[in-house]
This record gives sequence, C-alpha cells and structure tokens, in this order.
Amino acid sequence: MKAVVFDEGLKLDNNYPKPVPNKGEALVRVTLAGICNTDYEITKGYMGYKGILGHEAVGVVEEINDEDQSLLGKRVVAEISYGCKDPSCPYCAEKLYRHCPDRHTLGIWRKDGVFAEYFTMPLETLFEVPDNVPDKQAVFVEPLAAACEITEQLHIKPFEKVIVLGDGKLGLITALTLNAQNIDVTLIGKHQNKLDIAAAQGVETKLLQDLQVEKIYDVVVEATGSISGFETALALTKPRGTLVLKSTVAASKEFNLAPIVIDEITVLGSRCGQFGPALRLLKSGKVDFSPLISAIYGVDNALEGFEKNKEKETLKVLLKF
Amino acid sequence: MKAVVFDEGLKLDNNYPKPVPNKGEALVRVTLAGICNTDYEITKGYMGYKGILGHEAVGVVEEINDEDQSLLGKRVVAEISYGCKDPSCPYCAEKLYRHCPDRHTLGIWRKDGVFAEYFTMPLETLFEVPDNVPDKQAVFVEPLAAACEITEQLHIKPFEKVIVLGDGKLGLITALTLNAQNIDVTLIGKHQNKLDIAAAQGVETKLLQDLQVEKIYDVVVEATGSISGFETALALTKPRGTLVLKSTVAASKEFNLAPIVIDEITVLGSRCGQFGPALRLLKSGKVDFSPLISAIYGVDNALEGFEKNKEKETLKVLLKF
Repeated sequence: MKAVVFDEGLKLDNNYPKPVPNKGEALVRVTLAGICNTDYEITKGYMGYKGILGHEAVGVVEEINDEDQSLLGKRVVAEISYGCKDPSCPYCAEKLYRHCPDRHTLGIWRKDGVFAEYFTMPLETLFEVPDNVPDKQAVFVEPLAAACEITEQLHIKPFEKVIVLGDGKLGLITALTLNAQNIDVTLIGKHQNKLDIAAAQGVETKLLQDLQVEKIYDVVVEATGSISGFETALALTKPRGTLVLKSTVAASKEFNLAPIVIDEITVLGSRCGQFGPALRLLKSGKVDFSPLISAIYGVDNALEGFEKNKEKETLKVLLKF
Repeated sequence: MKAVVFDEGLKLDNNYPKPVPNKGEALVRVTLAGICNTDYEITKGYMGYKGILGHEAVGVVEEINDEDQSLLGKRVVAEISYGCKDPSCPYCAEKLYRHCPDRHTLGIWRKDGVFAEYFTMPLETLFEVPDNVPDKQAVFVEPLAAACEITEQLHIKPFEKVIVLGDGKLGLITALTLNAQNIDVTLIGKHQNKLDIAAAQGVETKLLQDLQVEKIYDVVVEATGSISGFETALALTKPRGTLVLKSTVAASKEFNLAPIVIDEITVLGSRCGQFGPALRLLKSGKVDFSPLISAIYGVDNALEGFEKNKEKETLKVLLKF
C-alpha cells in the first residue's frame, strides 16, 4: 500500500506492507488525514520515531478481528494511544491510555500511523463519526479533543476570563472550542487574517500589539510554542490563576520561574483528549473548522503537502487517500 | 532604636527612629526573630528593597492605635503582608492580602521589617501566640505557614505519595509539616545529619544518591532552589501529578518544558500561608522546630548572624532582642 514513512528521511513508499489487524483490532481504510506540527517535529528527530507518520485521520472500517463486528463498514476516527490494559495499570483502569507507561501512539511511538491507505487500531480506540459530520470536519477531531482536554482538566467558571495566545491552528482550534462551550475567551495573535477566522465564529480577538499586558486573566492558554509566548502568558496570569501549557516549549535562554511562586500560579500541562466530547461538539455544528484548511493533497503528492505545511501562512494541510 | 538595615550595604543602625503605629496598627516589641534566605537574597538586590530587614519574629504588643485594645500586652506573631483593603480589591475581600497588587510586606516590599527593637503592623495581621508555644517555636510560624499553604492550595489525598526534595530549612519544615498532617511524605536530601532531624520526628527520609528516579509520586515538592532540583522533581512526578514549586528557581541553561505537557503535570507555585493553621499545629505539639536552630545572636551581633546564615551547614539563625 501507499504510505508516508519517516526513516532517516521522509518518503512516499508505494509498496509498504498492508497491516493485518491483531485480535481485538480493526483494519481502517483511510479517506482523509491531517498533517500536525508534531509530524514535522518527528522529521526533525522528535521522539526518535521511525515508521508511518500521522495520527489525524478519518476512515472506514474494512475488517475486524473480533467477535464484535458492530463497527464494520462504519466511518470512524481513532484515539491516538492504546495502553497495556494490564489489570495492575492505574492509567488503563481509568481509560487514560494516553498516560499508560507502556502505551503505543499512532505515528508517534511504537505504532505505524495513519498517512497510509490502511492502519490498524484496537476497537476501544475507535469512534463512529456522526452522519452529519463530513470528513473535512471529522479529520479535526484529534486537535479538537486536545482542546476539549482543557475543560476535562480544569474547571473554568462561567465568569472567568480566558485568553489564548497564538493564532496558529493550535490557538485557533482552542479558542473556537472554548468559545463553543460559552466560555469568555479572547484570542491573541499576530495575524489579522487568522484572527478573522475565529472572529467570524464569535470569538473575541485582538492583535498582540494592541494587547495591554496585565495580570488579570483567570486562565491563560499558551499556544505559541515559544518561550517568549510563555513569558507573556505568565505576565497575563492573575495571582492564583492558571496558565495552560498546550505547546511544548523549550527555554533556550535564561528563564526565571520565580513569578510562578510569587503569584502562586498553576502551570497546567495539557496534551491529548478524549474523542467523545469532541465528536459531540462536531455533531452540534457549534464549530466549523473548514476555514482552517489551507490545502488538500492526494497521497501521491503527500511530500508536497509536508512542504506546504512548513510555510508560515499555512494552517491545516490535509491528505486525501 | 537598634535595627538591621539594608541600604546599599547591610548595617546595624543604633539610632533608627522608633516607628509610630498608624490608626488601626499596633506597636510590637520584638523578642526573637529568624533570618530567612529571602533576607540574604535582598542583600544581593532581590525586590530592590531598602529598609529594615526581616519578616519572621515573635514579640509583645506595647501600644495600639485603635479602640480595640484586646491584644495589648499579648505575645504575637504577624502575617507578613497587608493589603489595600479597598472594597473593590478581590484579593483583600478574600483576606488574600499576600496577593493584593497594592500590598506592603514586612522587610520585603514597602514596609520596614522586624529585625529591630520595634515594628508596627495593622491589627488584622497579628495573631496571639498560644501560651504553651515558646518563642523559639513561635518564631518559625511564618515558614511553617508557608508549608501549610500547600494543603490550602492542593487537596492531597490520604493514599497519595508525596516527596519533598531538599533538606535545607525549607524542605525540612515542609516535610515535618506535611508529616504532622498524616500525609505520606518522604524527604530527600544530600545531608544525612539534616535528614536525621526529620527522621527523628517520624518522616521517611532518603539520601538523593539512594533515590530511584521514577515517575511514581502524586505530589513532588521542589525545595532545593536549583534548576537541577526542578528537573529531578519533573522526573519524579507521575503523569497528571503535581509539582509544588516552593523555591524561586531561575533556569540558567537550556531547559525543556515539554515533559510538563506530555505528562500533563500541574506545576503549582506556592508561597506564603495563613498563620491560623500554623499556630494550631504549633499548639498541638505535633512539630518541633528546635533542632533546626543552628545559632542565636544578640542584636548587637546581628551581622555575625548573617554571616553564619551563609554557611552551608547552617539551618536557622535567630536574633534575640
């Protein structure tokens, strides 16, 4: 089968072996997939991963190696991690497969990803896509679930002020998702055209240059991925407020953590989320991610899609199978 | 009056003007005070503070400028910050004076401290010391309250495993305080003689060199003040666990925050606390801080006390007035 593989370099392999589902797994034929910045990071060495890339996809179940055939032929999306399911594992017991120390993660860790004609995953990771949700929305379920994760971890009260820093796809999806939950959210970025996407769906927006930096926000979401973004986020968080760290930041210069102590700030690391609430939000039609689609490439032109993804103006690049 | 003053250099001033209590304030005659590392930091420029140093003291109320004379002649300790008390200030409304943007803080920020024969503070900051608590224990109430702050901010469940990194006075007081609340706590340090102080009061202890670094602790308290301590703390915090940042750390090298996101760790900045629970703990006799007293100096030898405080083996240095 055709597959986008990273192994030293990035390449399109036209003869990658089609996977065979293990007991309890389904074989999914991919229809549409999305390139995430994590995929790009992996091509620069992140996680030391080698294999088929990709963890954002929608597809159709073609085969199930299990007595339970209920998902056969259904349109599905797959949560990206599965755990050891050992009875002694506290994370698997809580279905927190994404924190199981012995987990496998699609296209990131010990498991071939979704940039291929087929992938396999255990049945418990698969979710049927509601009929009214087109592939072009369903393919956003993984980053949408990551945005929903914030309200799984943190109780944001209706009167609290939330600010999201960064108008890349991470910031946009986060702001749209919080706004769809009737949370008082403002999105801050450097690009008027990107801010306009969120504004068109009712999100308050402001250019960074127009933002007055004051410690008045209950919740600040850092989605810029830069250490200067993290420092701005700290300067916006009110005493005893919460800074949600969504992007993986590395300090490459001297960096003072004292404000966290002095203002008793909570820095909350936040990663992937559950697909149930994300699909519910997609089904409701309260969010529309189609304005984030910058380009769609056929699998034969997948490497072009990766190049397009690197461009500063690009939001989401999709791959069609 | 005699006072230990920082203004460019550190000096003992024998003729500092005795303070006069404003309306609503008391004049307190200091009997015993404690040197904190923050005092030392101030002499190196921290907060840009100039004036009488010190924020840990026990004393006797000599005069009150208020109708309410109930504390006159009583032995008291003083919470270190007072707020603006403006009706529009949400922090003062919650008695979180330590987070009021317009606060004054004893010997740290816009308010002469306690290393003097007298200091003044508003009545609402003063707490009577229970009769069964000697001065040598009461003088620890401020760092003890800072340790109690952890359980004000964070619900530590009875089955959770807590580890405290650092066997300086901050780590020792934190471990003793958590242990006195029947929390499952282990103290880690590099000095067997310091660990023994905690062990003698029932705290589990371990030398750093004997610690197996695994992500298994629900709550990790960073009390080393070093960036390597912070990195070790991250490596000990289990996924979705909490890292309590007690010491003000500055990263002076490249430093990766990604583990916070990947393991969805909560980094909780934690500073000062309320004196009520701290005095209750002192009154109960469940903690004994006397083994932490390294030396006591008379006020005339206060500068010697500051030198003693710099020595690596020193824990708490007290000043007698």
